[in-house]
Amino acid sequence: MNNKKEVNAAILIIGNEILSGRTKDLNTSTISSWLNGIGIRVLEVRVVPDVEEKIISSLNELKKNFSYVFTSGGIGPTHDDITAESVSKCFDLKYEIHQNAYKILEKYYGKENFNEGRQKMVWMPSNANLILNPASGAPGFNIKNVFCLPGVPSILQSMLPELKNKLVGGNPILSKTISLKTIESEIAKSLKDVQNNNKDVDIGSYPFFRKGKIGVSIVMRSESQSKIDICNSQILNLINEKKIEIVERD
Amino acid sequence: MNNKKEVNAAILIIGNEILSGRTKDLNTSTISSWLNGIGIRVLEVRVVPDVEEKIISSLNELKKNFSYVFTSGGIGPTHDDITAESVSKCFDLKYEIHQNAYKILEKYYGKENFNEGRQKMVWMPSNANLILNPASGAPGFNIKNVFCLPGVPSILQSMLPELKNKLVGGNPILSKTISLKTIESEIAKSLKDVQNNNKDVDIGSYPFFRKGKIGVSIVMRSESQSKIDICNSQILNLINEKKIEIVERD
Repeated sequence: MNNKKEVNAAILIIGNEILSGRTKDLNTSTISSWLNGIGIRVLEVRVVPDVEEKIISSLNELKKNFSYVFTSGGIGPTHDDITAESVSKCFDLKYEIHQNAYKILEKYYGKENFNEGRQKMVWMPSNANLILNPASGAPGFNIKNVFCLPGVPSILQSMLPELKNKLVGGNPILSKTISLKTIESEIAKSLKDVQNNNKDVDIGSYPFFRKGKIGVSIVMRSESQSKIDICNSQILNLINEKKIEIVERD
Repeated sequence: MNNKKEVNAAILIIGNEILSGRTKDLNTSTISSWLNGIGIRVLEVRVVPDVEEKIISSLNELKKNFSYVFTSGGIGPTHDDITAESVSKCFDLKYEIHQNAYKILEKYYGKENFNEGRQKMVWMPSNANLILNPASGAPGFNIKNVFCLPGVPSILQSMLPELKNKLVGGNPILSKTISLKTIESEIAKSLKDVQNNNKDVDIGSYPFFRKGKIGVSIVMRSESQSKIDICNSQILNLINEKKIEIVERD
């Protein structure tokens, strides 16, 4: 894959608990930040319920439109874990016992404790590639450009390094942040001019309220450090002109 | 609207900062929990970048498929705030100064401080209904079944009560949680039987790791309290049979 081509991704979060508001999604942030480091940019996230047809229709759309799709959730042992079966149907593959996953979990739990509930976790699409799970045994899996990970944040996080040699990224996405003691409307016009002069840098403006202070964080993102540097110097100029105090910069 | 009909919703989060992993999305949880209380069930969430065509295509799909759509983000004063203009195009409406919003913000900031940056926030789709903002002045707006809210969590939260008389909900979605000192694979089979016997209750199973303890939270959700009660007693039976300790229940 040519490094100059943008490599992008979508995340599909599967789980009623996120939609009901009971649980806050932490996995998007974890996956996206990790992918940035290997040059893969997340361009869409969807959250869908534990409903087969919704999982399949979303996955069909996302796997067609993005270089990679990462799913999170629904690969545990209970009745509401239907990701593996849905992915099998989506790719028109048999849903069956994965022999290698079976061996891994039989060893992990011990033969006598490898009960029916746990055995459900080795049912996968036929010929899935395993994604090993150093935190809690049960592997995730990969079919073509779709990578299925668990929903529990700490377990998902432990599995990301296992993905590294399965993904081909582009140039890492670099970023620089300057946090200012100002309000957005004060800098909006000048910042728009800087954005127009620096088309290859995404400039984001985010108000913050922390430690009793209000301010604005300006985030510059690009694959090119030199383009970020040029953009940064133009932003520093506008800050100087307007006599705005810098609170923090990275 | 008949109360027996399911009233559902989608949330569209607009913002590069969520996709890049820089910021964790808190608004889905806030909006969903609040909507549950008035009988509106969120069935899909999408996160898209600050890109007009992505906003428009997602919005077109969601507003057709759900009773209500709530957007979050992109209604501030800076160049990356393009929600209002995108929504105007989506509904084929003029993007223009909203006279009432203008009056509200001119009064809020004072005539002399109502600069160009701030004035951008009164540009909206023609004839938008305003959603007042008790926290920071600049209103959100509503066109047909689409409600546009800001991205800053505390401001969004302050505006939810303003929506109450603009939405027609169904029966509130009730829930009951029992947290158990067990692991999912121990209860998976019995829980599946309970789910099969209680089709009108969604039963979710969520492993937790907190205060050094591991366990599983069983969440029952339904519009009917009596159906939750029946389901709950069946779950209590299975807990008794298996001699599982209850850690917490609501």
